[in-house]
Amino acid sequence: MSKIIEPKVLKGFRDFLPATEIERKRVIRLLEDNFESYGFVPIDTPALEYSEVLLGKGSGETDKQMYRFEDNGKRDVSLRFDLTIPFARFMAKNRKDLYLPFKRFHISKVWRGENTQRGRYREFTQCDFDIVGTDSPSADFEILMIMRSSLRALDVPNCTIHMSHRGIFNRFLNHLGILDQNVEILRTVDKLAKIGRDEVVRLLTELSDTEKAGKILDFIQKEEGFIPTLEKLEALAGGPAEDTQRLRDIYAYICELGIEDGFVLNPSITRGLDYYTGLVYETFLDDLPAIGSVCSGGRYNNLAELYSKESLPGVGSSIGLDRLMAGLEELGQSASKASKTQLIILNMDTALIGHYHSLADSFRKAGYCCEVYHETKKLGPQFKFAEAKSIPLAIICGSNEKEAGTVNLKDMTKRENFDALTLEEALAKAGELL
Amino acid sequence: MSKIIEPKVLKGFRDFLPATEIERKRVIRLLEDNFESYGFVPIDTPALEYSEVLLGKGSGETDKQMYRFEDNGKRDVSLRFDLTIPFARFMAKNRKDLYLPFKRFHISKVWRGENTQRGRYREFTQCDFDIVGTDSPSADFEILMIMRSSLRALDVPNCTIHMSHRGIFNRFLNHLGILDQNVEILRTVDKLAKIGRDEVVRLLTELSDTEKAGKILDFIQKEEGFIPTLEKLEALAGGPAEDTQRLRDIYAYICELGIEDGFVLNPSITRGLDYYTGLVYETFLDDLPAIGSVCSGGRYNNLAELYSKESLPGVGSSIGLDRLMAGLEELGQSASKASKTQLIILNMDTALIGHYHSLADSFRKAGYCCEVYHETKKLGPQFKFAEAKSIPLAIICGSNEKEAGTVNLKDMTKRENFDALTLEEALAKAGELL
Repeated sequence: MSKIIEPKVLKGFRDFLPATEIERKRVIRLLEDNFESYGFVPIDTPALEYSEVLLGKGSGETDKQMYRFEDNGKRDVSLRFDLTIPFARFMAKNRKDLYLPFKRFHISKVWRGENTQRGRYREFTQCDFDIVGTDSPSADFEILMIMRSSLRALDVPNCTIHMSHRGIFNRFLNHLGILDQNVEILRTVDKLAKIGRDEVVRLLTELSDTEKAGKILDFIQKEEGFIPTLEKLEALAGGPAEDTQRLRDIYAYICELGIEDGFVLNPSITRGLDYYTGLVYETFLDDLPAIGSVCSGGRYNNLAELYSKESLPGVGSSIGLDRLMAGLEELGQSASKASKTQLIILNMDTALIGHYHSLADSFRKAGYCCEVYHETKKLGPQFKFAEAKSIPLAIICGSNEKEAGTVNLKDMTKRENFDALTLEEALAKAGELL
Repeated sequence: MSKIIEPKVLKGFRDFLPATEIERKRVIRLLEDNFESYGFVPIDTPALEYSEVLLGKGSGETDKQMYRFEDNGKRDVSLRFDLTIPFARFMAKNRKDLYLPFKRFHISKVWRGENTQRGRYREFTQCDFDIVGTDSPSADFEILMIMRSSLRALDVPNCTIHMSHRGIFNRFLNHLGILDQNVEILRTVDKLAKIGRDEVVRLLTELSDTEKAGKILDFIQKEEGFIPTLEKLEALAGGPAEDTQRLRDIYAYICELGIEDGFVLNPSITRGLDYYTGLVYETFLDDLPAIGSVCSGGRYNNLAELYSKESLPGVGSSIGLDRLMAGLEELGQSASKASKTQLIILNMDTALIGHYHSLADSFRKAGYCCEVYHETKKLGPQFKFAEAKSIPLAIICGSNEKEAGTVNLKDMTKRENFDALTLEEALAKAGELL
């Protein structure tokens, strides 16, 4: 007898059991279909890349989180920690085989060896969609539309997309004479929801002075309505410019499509230390703001600059699939089920197994998910199995029924029986009941 | 100006460009739907596991191929190199949350640092489906049915599933008094297609003697028809037993469903050194036998024995997705396309961008994939873009058309124009043309 190995899973990693995985696949298909309806195309890139490629300019933070090692060929390699850097590398490498603007989506796993606190995993799924090769406000708007339609496709109830523009914020800081501290200020403002207004004021005062801290607080306060907020920002930033015009254009498109509800101009949105240069956005579930943004993104100046001389402006967004799915479950919006099987053919007689498979095949050909119970057992364990898989209908057929060319159909939920049906009648009855 | 990093990809790893990825996703969805129609449920497991868990009993071969390293927490971890061992670990870990028999499918990437010769990759997709917790021939048969229906769902032309039973082969070797050499003999027989008959005879003679080598060669020779072959094997192995009865049962099921074509009893199939104990099978494309088996599997005694005391007999199979897709492409059976976009709204006037998005939304609401060209440019580059994405229809709308409430529709392939259509007429015309 050999030693038993403990079947343990690494901290921060997860098995997905059927009910969860069925729901994940459902959600991913809806998202894929939605992206494709806007002309986005899928790509995939390797899980493992040269560390040099993934590190890029390198930041201490990322470095520490990477799963980095030497492979058997002595190469310095790492697991990807996001889908943006691989996309930049992908664009540079495959540029000659691609057209511009290029609109891609990529739904895949990434790995970060970070602390596994509340809802943070070391392996998680990212769901990115980007448009590169155009600086047009039409592209900014399309990303916003897709954020909205994606969440609607998933029946996410009441969510709001908050947007802002880094260019206006920087103009405002320049106006105040503190543009050189914009990174620290952005970082501080981004913490507003987490650390509260008083602490933000204290930190901003440390970075500038009391008066300027007050002005920053005023700037990031949204007004009632998109246009009034925009006008305030414009005034505080020193007048109209390309950045405010872009927001005006985008809002005009929003109004032309009649989808004003659900979009808010919110100058406190900054996206922290990210590489965004223009528009930025975050999405919150109105009924569950505490889980944070479920879909965030923005515009960046140059995607592939680390790997290529060609300049590729872009705009994109990312759905936090794990966080969103946790949120939907908390809101009771998750459609999770144990299996997709609609009918089970119970096994009454070993001599009839071929007949059972033939029956099941007829149901499958009619478009149903149908399975045969493989062992000839008492009905108790077979019903228990059907219950574990949430199978709503059962077909019961013994040798008498086979001889008569009939089956009995049982509605497992209502405990109703429909006996002596021909196969055609059974197919019709199943259609009625399902 | 910072240094440009070469956007290179590791040897044996690949980017998937849109045309390939669209086709991969199409194929995967068809397979998922087919598995689910038989009551199979999806699961997922971590890409990274404890090395101890993945190594199991440990074989030198596997060990050398694993991407194994120490993580930041000093754990000895590895990337999974197949989906079978993680499934065994999954069953042991989650047993209390699962029912038996458990039928799962798992389509995901695995990593092996092996030599990257002809069509071998270091990152590739496996597509496994297994039934554990039953020893019933009904389950063996179901796996065979799914192999067949999966390949049919993908429109794979002319393929044959070859099956055999290791138990009969072992009884035969026992009969010859050379059962103790069964591993080497299996390994040799498995190489028949690769090294040829003469070399197999030479190796088998080394392992036993000329007479026995001849008998083995006779044993692995299939006869005309399933039952004549089965009768020969039965005679050579010393008479009927559970193993031959199982093959007889399975063949009876095959006949009851009228799917005899496409199944062959072929005693030269052994699955080399795999852990199979009963039935084994391989699938070859009749028009492309050289690429080898595209779907293989068999029955094993105990899936989770390394991780649990519970005995879990099982049967399963695995589709080599990369190999199969390469084969389909070679046979001209690949449906690869550059995008799914059906209509493009050309951008004639920046002032109409909101209107273009509104038009596109109407087409999307009618179920079409429709995109807006984001920049106001001459028609040349816009047509070129549409061509690169294989978009069949274009909508052209300037300010006159907008005022008149019409659009012009252009069939890009036939170069036909349909002018001054109302939106309703355009929707109907698109339906006709697509």
